[in-house]
Amino acid sequence: MKELIEKSFFILFSIFVICQSVLASKKSLRNKEPCKLLELYYHDILFDGTDLANATSAQVTNKTTFGDFNFGMLVVFDDPVTTDQHLLSPPVARAQGFYFYDKKNGYNAWFAFTMAFNSTQYEGTLNIMDADLMVAETRDLSVIGGTGDFFMTKGIATIQTDTKQGIKYFRLKMDIK
Amino acid sequence: MKELIEKSFFILFSIFVICQSVLASKKSLRNKEPCKLLELYYHDILFDGTDLANATSAQVTNKTTFGDFNFGMLVVFDDPVTTDQHLLSPPVARAQGFYFYDKKNGYNAWFAFTMAFNSTQYEGTLNIMDADLMVAETRDLSVIGGTGDFFMTKGIATIQTDTKQGIKYFRLKMDIK
Amino acid sequence: MKELIEKSFFILFSIFVICQSVLASKKSLRNKEPCKLLELYYHDILFDGTDLANATSAQVTNKTTFGDFNFGMLVVFDDPVTTDQHLLSPPVARAQGFYFYDKKNGYNAWFAFTMAFNSTQYEGTLNIMDADLMVAETRDLSVIGGTGDFFMTKGIATIQTDTKQGIKYFRLKMDIK
Repeated sequence: MKELIEKSFFILFSIFVICQSVLASKKSLRNKEPCKLLELYYHDILFDGTDLANATSAQVTNKTTFGDFNFGMLVVFDDPVTTDQHLLSPPVARAQGFYFYDKKNGYNAWFAFTMAFNSTQYEGTLNIMDADLMVAETRDLSVIGGTGDFFMTKGIATIQTDTKQGIKYFRLKMDIK
Repeated sequence: MKELIEKSFFILFSIFVICQSVLASKKSLRNKEPCKLLELYYHDILFDGTDLANATSAQVTNKTTFGDFNFGMLVVFDDPVTTDQHLLSPPVARAQGFYFYDKKNGYNAWFAFTMAFNSTQYEGTLNIMDADLMVAETRDLSVIGGTGDFFMTKGIATIQTDTKQGIKYFRLKMDIK
Repeated sequence: MKELIEKSFFILFSIFVICQSVLASKKSLRNKEPCKLLELYYHDILFDGTDLANATSAQVTNKTTFGDFNFGMLVVFDDPVTTDQHLLSPPVARAQGFYFYDKKNGYNAWFAFTMAFNSTQYEGTLNIMDADLMVAETRDLSVIGGTGDFFMTKGIATIQTDTKQGIKYFRLKMDIK
């Protein structure tokens, strides 16, 4: 694994917050706790055509000639999510979805993905969609819905770049509230 | 039509549930019933290059070489939605959006789409986004918003595989609550 | 700029409404005003391979042979959003995301995008996803979530076609409530 890490790229995002919407109705007052907090790490290894065993994502469209920052390059991913920084720790969820680069004069991305949980602690999905304004040190992504233990969940995910080694590998630290 | 069906593939999904969020404000208390239930069928016929008249969806990106399960293949669709299992029944809505395959070691998909209603019963749109964990017999998709009769709607859609004949044709049974 | 406008295409959308969900919980009653209203204009210039300086969006996938209305053509954009109709006014936000055409027998599109605000008045993002039923004079898009000043925002965006000069340039008028 060391070898992979060495030739890989690191982006460490951190802090991931979700506040559950509390819905009041006369018929059924759903009194969930207002906020949950989970801290999770999300690992992405972009397929280079040869590393089938390790890779977790693949490029689906070519970048365009619109600027020099991969504009239009779309990547589909199915990434392990762990409770610590180690790529090989048992995953508690999969992050499944896509991102694309969308700025002609800098790196910027747009994400839509699902956190699919299947652990003793959580079952269900959590859906996230937002621009990832890479220039900001920390940035928030919207949590727009969920199923199972995350039924009707809304909130935000605050992510932060920690290390960056290009686009090959990145890791997300997520505190889910 | 028989011919089409014979050479087609069937996936029957079933049960589609939406619970409407009940929003309380001092100015305007929106007191909708907490839950609506609709049972609908969704039909998809993938374009093979020749069946322009019957097909309702088309492949937009090629699958990648990342695994053997169509990873990265993205399909855009505009599918009729009917109140019974018959493909040729008058549609009450169109399901418009896309899905892609996103697993290297099995079939798994990710959906984002809009149910656009235009019938005597319902007008408006309903937006759905989630991973479709194909291995599970039933799986939930998040309903994340809507317009018209589905203004501010949230909830889940439970779908179920009934029949499967590859990726050419599939049908969704949906009970909207 | 005149030259650009002349050779460009115009679609003016108008009225963009967002109602903020008002969430009541025993622990923390979030008493935001029920509705905000913003009027904004959104400008899109599709890259033709040469106009790198002016263009704000680029085609990422080719249209398919499924019908004659660009079915499957996917466009990624990073468009300026201004408070008046002028393309060159200082932008208060960027609209970042994608759309694709999804009808075989007419023009119809599907949008998912983020309004990324970075002005003295608003900071944060607003996420929108829906079918754009181009045949209707006005149509609503779902607002499904946000961050920063738009934390937990839900609502709708009503857009309207004003002028249309093909797919090269379009402008959105948006009244955010």
